[in-house]
Amino acid sequence: MAVHIALDVMGGDRGPAAMVSGAVQAVHELDLEVTLLGDAQQINKALGDLRVQDSRLHIVHTSQIISMDESPIEAVRKKRDASIVVAFGLLKEARVDAVVSAGNSGATMAAAVRMVGRLKKIARPGIASVFPTLKNPVVMMDVGANVDCRPQHLFQFGVMAAAFSRVLFGRQRPTVGLLSIGEEGGKGNTLVKQTHELFLKSSLNYIGNVEGRDIFQGNTDVIICDGFVGNVCLKVSEGLAEAVMAMLRLELSKSVAAKVGYFLARHAFTSFKKRVDYSEYGGAPLLGMNGTGIVCHGRSDAKAIKNAIKVAAEMVRNRVNDHIVQLLNDAEAAGVLEQGSNPDSMEPAETVT
Amino acid sequence: MAVHIALDVMGGDRGPAAMVSGAVQAVHELDLEVTLLGDAQQINKALGDLRVQDSRLHIVHTSQIISMDESPIEAVRKKRDASIVVAFGLLKEARVDAVVSAGNSGATMAAAVRMVGRLKKIARPGIASVFPTLKNPVVMMDVGANVDCRPQHLFQFGVMAAAFSRVLFGRQRPTVGLLSIGEEGGKGNTLVKQTHELFLKSSLNYIGNVEGRDIFQGNTDVIICDGFVGNVCLKVSEGLAEAVMAMLRLELSKSVAAKVGYFLARHAFTSFKKRVDYSEYGGAPLLGMNGTGIVCHGRSDAKAIKNAIKVAAEMVRNRVNDHIVQLLNDAEAAGVLEQGSNPDSMEPAETVT
Repeated sequence: MAVHIALDVMGGDRGPAAMVSGAVQAVHELDLEVTLLGDAQQINKALGDLRVQDSRLHIVHTSQIISMDESPIEAVRKKRDASIVVAFGLLKEARVDAVVSAGNSGATMAAAVRMVGRLKKIARPGIASVFPTLKNPVVMMDVGANVDCRPQHLFQFGVMAAAFSRVLFGRQRPTVGLLSIGEEGGKGNTLVKQTHELFLKSSLNYIGNVEGRDIFQGNTDVIICDGFVGNVCLKVSEGLAEAVMAMLRLELSKSVAAKVGYFLARHAFTSFKKRVDYSEYGGAPLLGMNGTGIVCHGRSDAKAIKNAIKVAAEMVRNRVNDHIVQLLNDAEAAGVLEQGSNPDSMEPAETVT
Repeated sequence: MAVHIALDVMGGDRGPAAMVSGAVQAVHELDLEVTLLGDAQQINKALGDLRVQDSRLHIVHTSQIISMDESPIEAVRKKRDASIVVAFGLLKEARVDAVVSAGNSGATMAAAVRMVGRLKKIARPGIASVFPTLKNPVVMMDVGANVDCRPQHLFQFGVMAAAFSRVLFGRQRPTVGLLSIGEEGGKGNTLVKQTHELFLKSSLNYIGNVEGRDIFQGNTDVIICDGFVGNVCLKVSEGLAEAVMAMLRLELSKSVAAKVGYFLARHAFTSFKKRVDYSEYGGAPLLGMNGTGIVCHGRSDAKAIKNAIKVAAEMVRNRVNDHIVQLLNDAEAAGVLEQGSNPDSMEPAETVT
């Protein structure tokens, strides 16, 4: 049976048309079905504009929206008919296999926790992100869901990100590095030093500390950090990449020779942009939930949405969550998993947009 | 009287010759004196190779070196005749006005603490760094000296970095931002939320939270974070800038048109490189010490060393430390300074290379 994805059409800075267009591309190119959640009138208009009628596209009308600046947990509790809440409701009832949204990431997280809950033994679900690098893509986790972490949380991020790397990029034993400020195991803050000991005892393919510089080398499959550090890294990278291109464009417009040079080399610049384009990787997976979810960048265009749907489908087909459970069982057998780290005894995940 | 700088010739990846060459450039271009500390034979050889004899250059022979991988505090305690230890000894005796080193930054920090101590009321000295941006340079602190911080430490980093920004870049009331993962004051981890309250109560020109993306926009004069986050940011930036250039070079070498284009636009690339070149800013100031010190990147070339010497001289001439003391007094009057935050009652700064 084809994988069935729920798409929250009301999230994203570009409006419903871009989301619908991404879904249309997805059902045309890939073997799957998509349910579009949001204002039915806007969805039908977007489909009409694209002249699309496709039995693999379904519509579920929802009447509420959670905006970017709302408090996630409160909004999810109050707005029962918000697109993202209804989407995870469908997932809970097994009427879809995964949820994709480009809306408020905190609300996406909160809706997932509320509707489908966490995987057993997972203390804190989190958000992973895929970084383009000089070699292989690197999976970084957490990139914003958990800002104050304990060593056990970081260890579990390692388990989840390793399972994701294995399933998405075919790494049998993905290498796992701990983000710190020196390569030796003794370096870092208290959280990192204590997490280092947990990783050493585990059966993960742990390679020790890595530094910020290493992220873009692509020599490590997985890099682990708390959600505050991860989110800062993500935004520093975005900001620097944009600043570098802006400075370069400025310099390239200063002389005729430079302008001609830029014109001749324009295909190189296009290839380069494609290489560092986050939309190629289709959003950031929520990991640790009892179900599959992807949060996309607010600025996502149709292509990014299509790729996010593709990644969600691959996560479902290749059973990422089964791999996570297996790695957690291994960790428990190795005595690395904290006792009592079942969902009910843990505080709810803090979330950020 | 000319400002007198002590230069640790034994630090730096490029060896004594590059350090000596930087000092030679400094005394030629600027009105100052430099004392070179290290192996006298190597220093004399470097001066001989450059055919330089200059009465503004002095040599102090030292017999020991602290390498990059030594434990800073232990090394500084044991190696009394290490170049960096003797340099701060000269500063203590007021025989020089400032110290510049491209060696082990932890050892530089430890030698400074041991020999000259902290400024009164400073809980934790730290290391600031200047980031090139689309507009004005941004001063970020701490970038690696203090990995586990309390709100009071971050607040004091704000005081020190603001004084530095004022003196070096002529900002009368530099804007101070707190690095977080959302712009609203309520966002961030516990440390950031508590620090936010301290900044709000102070007389600093505090503009609230800023995000990683904002660093390179140059809209804020000063950005504050703990040393773990700051060091990660610094290394992520270095790594990404290198990766971006490597990917672009690769794309530009793929076709004849691109190669010709690159040739025509080569001056634009050179200007661009100069724009993002950290060596233009001459190293990272140690702030909070009872004296002036600069740590340079290990890879510093002669120009970077010359610029670091220049910045050190400007810090001395413009009395950065007097400004810090004044801002601390203001903070005390505003009730923001923690009681008992005198050097003797505080644990020693943790340091990293």
